[in-house]
Parts: sequence; structure tokens; C-alpha cells
Amino acid sequence: MWKQLVFLRSFSFTWCTGGGDGLIKSHPRRSFHLYSGSAMAKSKFEYVRIFETDDTCLRNCYIVVRLDGRNFHRFAEQHSFAKPNDARALGLMTRSARTVMEELEDIVIAYGQSDEYSFVFKRSSNWFKRRASKLVTHVASQFSSSYVFHWRDYFGEQQLFYPPGFDGRVVLYPSNQNLKDYLSWRQADCHINNLYNTAFWNLVQKGGLSTSQAEEKLKGTVTADKNEILFSEFNINYNNEPPLYRKGTVLIWEKVNETTVKQVRLPNEDEKEVTVIRSRSKVTAHHCDVIGEQFWEQHPDILESDG
Amino acid sequence: MWKQLVFLRSFSFTWCTGGGDGLIKSHPRRSFHLYSGSAMAKSKFEYVRIFETDDTCLRNCYIVVRLDGRNFHRFAEQHSFAKPNDARALGLMTRSARTVMEELEDIVIAYGQSDEYSFVFKRSSNWFKRRASKLVTHVASQFSSSYVFHWRDYFGEQQLFYPPGFDGRVVLYPSNQNLKDYLSWRQADCHINNLYNTAFWNLVQKGGLSTSQAEEKLKGTVTADKNEILFSEFNINYNNEPPLYRKGTVLIWEKVNETTVKQVRLPNEDEKEVTVIRSRSKVTAHHCDVIGEQFWEQHPDILESDG
Amino acid sequence: MWKQLVFLRSFSFTWCTGGGDGLIKSHPRRSFHLYSGSAMAKSKFEYVRIFETDDTCLRNCYIVVRLDGRNFHRFAEQHSFAKPNDARALGLMTRSARTVMEELEDIVIAYGQSDEYSFVFKRSSNWFKRRASKLVTHVASQFSSSYVFHWRDYFGEQQLFYPPGFDGRVVLYPSNQNLKDYLSWRQADCHINNLYNTAFWNLVQKGGLSTSQAEEKLKGTVTADKNEILFSEFNINYNNEPPLYRKGTVLIWEKVNETTVKQVRLPNEDEKEVTVIRSRSKVTAHHCDVIGEQFWEQHPDILESDG
Amino acid sequence: MWKQLVFLRSFSFTWCTGGGDGLIKSHPRRSFHLYSGSAMAKSKFEYVRIFETDDTCLRNCYIVVRLDGRNFHRFAEQHSFAKPNDARALGLMTRSARTVMEELEDIVIAYGQSDEYSFVFKRSSNWFKRRASKLVTHVASQFSSSYVFHWRDYFGEQQLFYPPGFDGRVVLYPSNQNLKDYLSWRQADCHINNLYNTAFWNLVQKGGLSTSQAEEKLKGTVTADKNEILFSEFNINYNNEPPLYRKGTVLIWEKVNETTVKQVRLPNEDEKEVTVIRSRSKVTAHHCDVIGEQFWEQHPDILESDG
Repeated sequence: MWKQLVFLRSFSFTWCTGGGDGLIKSHPRRSFHLYSGSAMAKSKFEYVRIFETDDTCLRNCYIVVRLDGRNFHRFAEQHSFAKPNDARALGLMTRSARTVMEELEDIVIAYGQSDEYSFVFKRSSNWFKRRASKLVTHVASQFSSSYVFHWRDYFGEQQLFYPPGFDGRVVLYPSNQNLKDYLSWRQADCHINNLYNTAFWNLVQKGGLSTSQAEEKLKGTVTADKNEILFSEFNINYNNEPPLYRKGTVLIWEKVNETTVKQVRLPNEDEKEVTVIRSRSKVTAHHCDVIGEQFWEQHPDILESDG
Repeated sequence: MWKQLVFLRSFSFTWCTGGGDGLIKSHPRRSFHLYSGSAMAKSKFEYVRIFETDDTCLRNCYIVVRLDGRNFHRFAEQHSFAKPNDARALGLMTRSARTVMEELEDIVIAYGQSDEYSFVFKRSSNWFKRRASKLVTHVASQFSSSYVFHWRDYFGEQQLFYPPGFDGRVVLYPSNQNLKDYLSWRQADCHINNLYNTAFWNLVQKGGLSTSQAEEKLKGTVTADKNEILFSEFNINYNNEPPLYRKGTVLIWEKVNETTVKQVRLPNEDEKEVTVIRSRSKVTAHHCDVIGEQFWEQHPDILESDG
Repeated sequence: MWKQLVFLRSFSFTWCTGGGDGLIKSHPRRSFHLYSGSAMAKSKFEYVRIFETDDTCLRNCYIVVRLDGRNFHRFAEQHSFAKPNDARALGLMTRSARTVMEELEDIVIAYGQSDEYSFVFKRSSNWFKRRASKLVTHVASQFSSSYVFHWRDYFGEQQLFYPPGFDGRVVLYPSNQNLKDYLSWRQADCHINNLYNTAFWNLVQKGGLSTSQAEEKLKGTVTADKNEILFSEFNINYNNEPPLYRKGTVLIWEKVNETTVKQVRLPNEDEKEVTVIRSRSKVTAHHCDVIGEQFWEQHPDILESDG
Repeated sequence: MWKQLVFLRSFSFTWCTGGGDGLIKSHPRRSFHLYSGSAMAKSKFEYVRIFETDDTCLRNCYIVVRLDGRNFHRFAEQHSFAKPNDARALGLMTRSARTVMEELEDIVIAYGQSDEYSFVFKRSSNWFKRRASKLVTHVASQFSSSYVFHWRDYFGEQQLFYPPGFDGRVVLYPSNQNLKDYLSWRQADCHINNLYNTAFWNLVQKGGLSTSQAEEKLKGTVTADKNEILFSEFNINYNNEPPLYRKGTVLIWEKVNETTVKQVRLPNEDEKEVTVIRSRSKVTAHHCDVIGEQFWEQHPDILESDG
């Protein structure tokens, strides 16, 4: 920040007196502005830039950006989301998250459930110079515009009544263990919520209870109690519920082999078919456990060492 | 932050041992989660919350959030924006900004030009507890989803090829003068860029110059030179160009009178028509100068005193 | 911060291989180091500098540094401070504060009471580039070393048993009113504490109550009650207590006229005495009210306008 | 910060109207204030506390506080420090650092050279709730008051002319490797400076060169060159110079066995002498290499794992 300031000060400002509204020196500040223009001009108001403060994220830490849907309880009601889970809504969340990851290759893993998604930048990332406000707004913006852009692919004729909002935050994690615990926390939250909601909505939808009766019935119950209610009253083995609902969605980069068949003609030979296998990185979705060590052993490239 | 931590620590964690994956105690953390559930449960991973840091904005300062289109040069090319100004694109920007303001009443003024928009929260605002990351992401998210949502209203059959991104930043201004200077800085930037671009594209589109010839011709010119080129070569008086292009767009809240006619029947009287005038606050758009004092004198309610 | 980083990276590091421990290139980093040496050398560990973060204070705000004695209750006991007020201890605090102000001319006002002192940097200050950690540590360090250095001037033969510690904090105030309210807050605190302590120790020292009896007696009393106790039981009119105790100490810069008499001999004249009056800035101490407007009207130069 | 704010707001402020200056409610804010008083009273100015911002250090990172002497070149001149190294001055620095460590047990290692000292808080430290300003000022304050307090023990009759100042900064390091590299950076800096200064002052003091001639002679030299100058011109093998000068000083906590002999009389026995060995933690000083792995292998308890 400071260096920048010193730099600005080294300009000798001279004010144009004639022409236009007399407030401007000459021409455009930003060469990257919408339509060209070589940078040079300054106005006397330029000094306001020194109020910008530095929000660089501490180096060698994982940068986690988590988005949460704003007023999504109401949004879900108004757009007739199925309860306790709406596969279309979850699909659209993941589609939007995938867009974010494809735009920003420094995101090594993302995890989503319900109306939230977490994105993890690798600890050595230098994207946007690690400036927190840039990172978090870019993720929030790209996610939100994608959500509207892809709505129809998931909701078809169900109209989108208004543009939804997501808010975000940035959290830094200094060690691999801290990061794994963060993701475990979110997945544990998914489990806790989904088990509760599955029991709750079965009691209401199939059991004929009112919402307050269902709430009363579940008050004080632990995991085993809710499993038992689901099994004895609705013949549901919770562990057989779809992993998408129980575990949420993990997005990672994986090498994927792509096979294509090409017609090739070598000199002095007949044309023949050749099978070409190409490996490229792709964002892949998983509904697996990230709390145990197995996932991390199977994907050793996601995390960098603590060194 | 700290109080929160102490609070968390005062929980006595007990671990459920049977059922599920054995990692979870009982039920959901967030009562505001997508589908209900009374808050109570904690996992052992909950501790990761203490890594969240406080980013409360200093009190009694104006909070400015500025969004900038990401790679909008390319976005403009691919969506055939008119040059030097595309009225549809500017209209869509302002439509999105209006949505943001209507969602967040604490924004007292917004200013937009080209692919950027600045939003000013009143200095006494306590919205989102003044947490910078929440403020900036909510603005970025709502703006971005609105941009896609309203695209068709401005671009009609021109297809949107991909969801655009905007990045944001937060800057604090402690005094009314600093804030006015900030807005003046952006409007001066608008003037500088638009005058340059108007000259540049006239030289290319009507004058038959290549883009590098036009750039060469404008190199080192001041305001008066560019005015002269526009007038003598293209018979354009720059001051008669549309204020939307020269001044950008100012959004403020204004009391607007709305007149309706109602049929009223009083006891023992014939039904008659009554004209009802109601005053309500509305976001209004202006393309006026904000650098001089006149605008601020005409709208004394926008700023709070420096007290 | 960032610019600095880029700068560091632009060095092309080359490692010396022979001599010494083989880790170093050539010579000293800091030309300002204790004993000379022109800056140039870098080690491969230099990268750790990029972990330093920027803590520049927002411009156009008053920067307040407040120091508090650490464990001063114990320190006071061990050094036999008089109760409820020790004039020597207060004098030493002010002597130390004066040293801080004389070292740092950007401090425009300081206020002290009990074991605390607040220092206010002018809002336009650029001292130490407004870096919070530098400002606060320099004040804390200079104050602490002065406290020990001047101890004997105030406590004479009373030995100093161990070096005391002070901790500090930085708070920013964006407006003149906020700053005045800050100083009023500290002075109101002084009043509240001193009235209580005066009543308390009179009850103990002259009234023969135990400390817990005195505490019980004062429980729930308001200002008027305590004034009444002092007057009726000990014939003390609180308003006649020394202003140093009731109001604390305000340090400001004032122009002071210094008169000297010089012997002057002009050409072709006899030597004669000439009185020379010189005006210079000096730190002066006051025990006056800063809550009302009078003080600020009498010293209009302390604050800068809110512009 | 925020929780605190909410808390303050929940007070219903009522103003006393009679008695005193009419600005105060009842009694003292701080029960820990210099002279007792149960906390309760608030003034209407209390609101200024909400301007304090949170500066909690990220958890699970080492917190490094580095102090630097302010204007110590001048201080060294005025107090006739020997060149290139003054053993008394280095001793006093280490004495002051030891005081800091003994006050603050969470400091696991300190490293000093020349006029600087670095203090490392363990990564799990919760001292002062990890508030950066509190940590850095406490270290700076305690170090500075100790420096003056112990002056005479190191400088004897050499008078201290004025109280010196030290400024400080806080840097966070997320991994053990980062922290070791930080300490290596400072020790490499010590080596670079000391080799240069040793050569420089030998050229001046024994070689008869002026300071500018010495500077000129050393310009562009690498480690091997300076070693060669010392050896060939002054018969000095740099590696035999005192480790205190070449390596600086490392302070750590070590278990030290203390042997005492006691007279013991058991029932029905004669009195006899018993040797008692007690182990207690003590701050010990070392002038060893911290750049290689050996030091860290010998003292595995200093660092916590990266987990």
C-alpha cells in the first residue's frame, strides 16, 4: 500500500485550466478499461486512493472462501424446492461451483451442501495477489451469475422469480490438519442437518404430524434415536439414503483419460483408424467421506505439505 | 470474535459413540439453515471457527464498495457492444445496481460508469454489523445475479454466451469531503475516458484511421485538443454528447409523489372520485455533475454531518 | 506490502559457495544498522519478509495510542504509593508522557490519569507511515524507558524494585466529535474513579472502616451521595480537591514567550541592554475540564477541521 | 469485538442530573483500576469503545515480535560503544530479553544480535488472547524499562544520557519451516553484518584507513574476500572470533538440575547429609548455529508439530 502511495506522490500534478470542465488533466487511468486508452491522466481527486487498505492473506495458509445463500429458506419456498432435499437445487449449486473452479485453477477442492459452498485455494496460491476482498468477491460474483445462467438447465419450466444473493467470507488455515478439520466440520454439519431433516419431513409427509409435532418429537434425540424412528416407522435405512444428501458434494481436479478414434494415413499406407488417449485435468464430483483419512490417501495431490 | 470463542469453549463436548459414523453429537447448528432444525449439535471439528477473523469496518466512516467487470474488454467484444458506448450495457449495469440498492436500504448513493459501479453505505450503517466481507460479497453477488437475470430486458435476442464476473473492494472514507472527492474521482475518470474514447472511435469509425493511427494521433493531447479534433473533423460539440456517457449515472433515494384516483363512498353520499397523493422513497437515476457543490446542495439528505 | 514483494522477487539471487557457512551472499541488508555497511546482501531466507502484513492506519483519522500500567495495583503496593492518589507517581507518569511528546511532534494532545496515558496523533500525521505497530510500540517503549530513567527525580530514595510494564492499544477516530468524546470518556472515568476512591479511602483512613465495610457503604451510591459523605463525615468539599486528582493531566503544545536580556553594542554606540522575547513551542500541562467546549475554544489549533 | 458491542448497547443509559458536573452516572468502570472500586458506572461517552478493532493473531501460527533500537547508531556514538562489537551493550540487550521471557512464559525462543531482538510465542499461545497490539507493546515496554533498569550492571560508571526507544512489529509464521527460516534469516543477517563490520573496523583501527577508504576497499567483496583480508592483513581467522559476535544470542527454556545438600534426621537415626537434585526451567543463552538442523534436533521441545 505504502509503496504505491509513495509512487503516486512522486507525480508532479499540474492542472489544466482551459477546456472541458477544468477539472481534469489529460487521459485515462486504466489501460485495461472497457475501451482502450493509454494510461496517463490524473485528477486532483486521485488522492482518495490512499484510503484503500491492504488485505493480503497471510502466505502459506489455505484460503477458504465459503458462500451461503441469503434468505434461502424463503427462496426455497417460493421456488417450490422439494423437501428435505431438492436434487435440482443441489445440482445447480454444484454446476455453479464447477464454473468457479474452472475459472480459477488455484482452487484445489470445493465442498458443498444445502445452500452453501466452500472453495479452498492452495496455500501457495498467488491469485489476485492473495487479496482477500478480490478473492471472495470474484468467487461470489461468478457463482451467482452462473446460478442464474444455468437455472433453466436444472429447473426447466419452473420460472426464476428474482435473482438470488449469496454472501461470503474468507478464513485462513495454516496447516493441513486444520484444513481437513474445516472440511470435516462442514461434512459433519451436512450429516447432522440431513439426518434431522430426513426424520422431520418423513414424520410430516408420511407420518401425518404437524411441523410443530415433528419438532417436538425430535427434541433431544440423538443420532441413534433418529435412525431408529426412520427405520421402525418408515422402513428407511438412513445409510441407504443417497450419498449426495448424506455426504454433500466434493469437487476436485482429476486427470481423466479421453479416448478418441482418428483416421490416419501414413505415407505409402492405407488410411487406418488409430485410437488416441489423451489425459487432461477435469473437475470431478464425489459424494464421499472426507472426514476419515481414506479420501486424502487416495488423492495425495490435493494438499501441499506443511513445510 | 473472542467473546464468541469463550462461548464455544464453555460447551462440554460429549461424543456419541453409536450410530452413524460416530463423529457427530446430535443436531443442527444453524436454525436458519435451508430446512429448519433447532440449533444444538456440535462436532469436534467446530473449533475451526476460531480461525475466522473480525473485519468490522471502522465506525462513523462511509463504506464504499466498488465493483469492476472482470475481463470486460473481452466480454464486450464477444457480445458486440457498440463503441465507444453501448447504451444497452450501461442500462443493464444501472438496472443491476438499482436491484442492489433496493435490497440494501443503507446504500445512500451509487455511481456507475463503463463496467464499474460504486455503492456508498451511510456512515452510521450497521448493516451486516459492518463486516467488510459480508458487505462486499453481498453487493457483488446480488449485482452479478441481477446482471444475468435482466440481460434479456436490455439485449433482447443477443444471446448471453457465459456468466460474467465482477470483483469488488471496500474502501472507508472518514469525512464528507473525502467521500465527495471519491465520487468526483470516479466521475473525472469517466470524463477522461469518455472524451478519449469518443475521439478515438470517431477517428477510427468515421475518420478511417486504424486503431494504432488513432492512438498515435491522440498521444499527448489534452482536453482542448480532443475537443478541437471532434469539432473540426467530425462537427461534434463534445458538450452536447449524451450526459449518460459524459457524466455516468448517479443513483439516489428520492421521495416521489404518486397520484392515484380512488372511488370513495361516504355515508349518505354518492360515490365520488378522490385523488390520493402518496409520497414514497424510490431509487432515481441522474446523469449530472457531482464534482461541484450544486448536486450536494440540492440533495442535503444524502450525507450525514461530520459530527 | 505487495509492491515490496515484487521488488524483492526482482532480485536474482546467487549463492556464494565458498567461505563461511556457505549460506550468505555478501553484505549487510540495512545501511541504518548499528555499525554502518552499505546495503546489498541477501540470504535465501529473505523470503520470510513477505509474511509481514500492512497495518497502515486509515488516513484522515485521529490515531489514539493508550497505555495502561500492567499489574499496577501490585506495583503501587510494593512501592508504597499513597492512597487514593500519589502525587509522585502521577508526576512521573506525566514526565514520561512529556518525553514521548517531545520525541514525537505529531502528537497534538495527551491525557493521563491514574496508571494510564492516551496520546493523540494529528489526523494528517504521516509519522512512521501511519503503521500501527510502529506507532504503538514506539510510544510504549519510550514511555517505559523514561519511567525508569526519571524514577529517582520523583521517588528519591524510594528504591525501584523491578522494571514496570505498560501495554498499549491503537484506536482510530474519524471526526473531531469522536475524538473529543474519547477524551471526555477518559476524563469522566477519572472523575468516577477519583470520587469513589476519595470517599473509599477517607472512610478507611479517617473513618476507621475496614475496606469491605467501606465498599459496602458505597455500594449503590451516586455522585451526590458520595459528595455528601465526604462533606458531612470528613468536612471535605470534593470540588476543592486538587484538580490534578479530579481532572487528570492534559498535555498540549503551546507557544511560550521566553524573555532574555542581551548586551548589544551597535557601531558608534555604547553597549546597552536589549530585552529579547522569543516565542517557542513547549509542552504544557493543564488540569482542566476537556468535556465542555471551553477548552477547545481556547485552543483552536489542537484539532484539524473535519474536511 | 461485535459481541462486546451488542453487550454495551444492551445497557439502558440513564443520566444523573444533580451533583458533580452532571456527566456521570455512578461508579468505576474497571475493577482492576489502580485503586479498587466495583465496576458499574458508565458515562455517555462510553460509545467510543466501539471504535476499537480486533487484532487477534491467526491461530496455530507462531507469533514473532521483533524489536529494533531506534536511532541506535547515534545512541551507540553518544555512549561510546566499542566497535565493531560492544560486549556490554550485547549483554544488556540479552539481560532485557531474559526479563521479557521470564515475564511471558509463552515465549519459547528469542534471538538477538546488534540492536535487535526477536521473540517467538508458541503457536498455541493464548496469551493476551493473541491480540497483536497487546503482545507487541508488552514486549516493547518490558524490554525498554529493563534496559534502563539494568544499565548500570553492564555499563557501570558510564552514565546513561537519555532513555532509549525500541520499535516493534508482529509477524506470523504458519509452519515450523517458515519459523526456522525466519530465525535463519536473522542469523544470516548477523553473520553478514558482523563479517563486514569486523573487516571494516580492522581496516580503520589497525590498518589506518579512513572510513571512506575502508568502505571503498570492501565494496563488491564477497565472504571469501573479507575472510582473506582479515587473515592476510590482520592475522585474524574469522571463525575464531567470539561466537557471541558471529552467531548472536539464542535464548531458550531449559530444564536445569539444581543440586542442594540438606541435613536430614530420620526417626531413630543420626542426622545425615542428603543431596537433593531438583529440576526447574530456566532461560539459558546460547551462541550457536540455528540455521542447520542440529540445533533443532537437540531441542525438540521448542517447536510444536505442524498438525
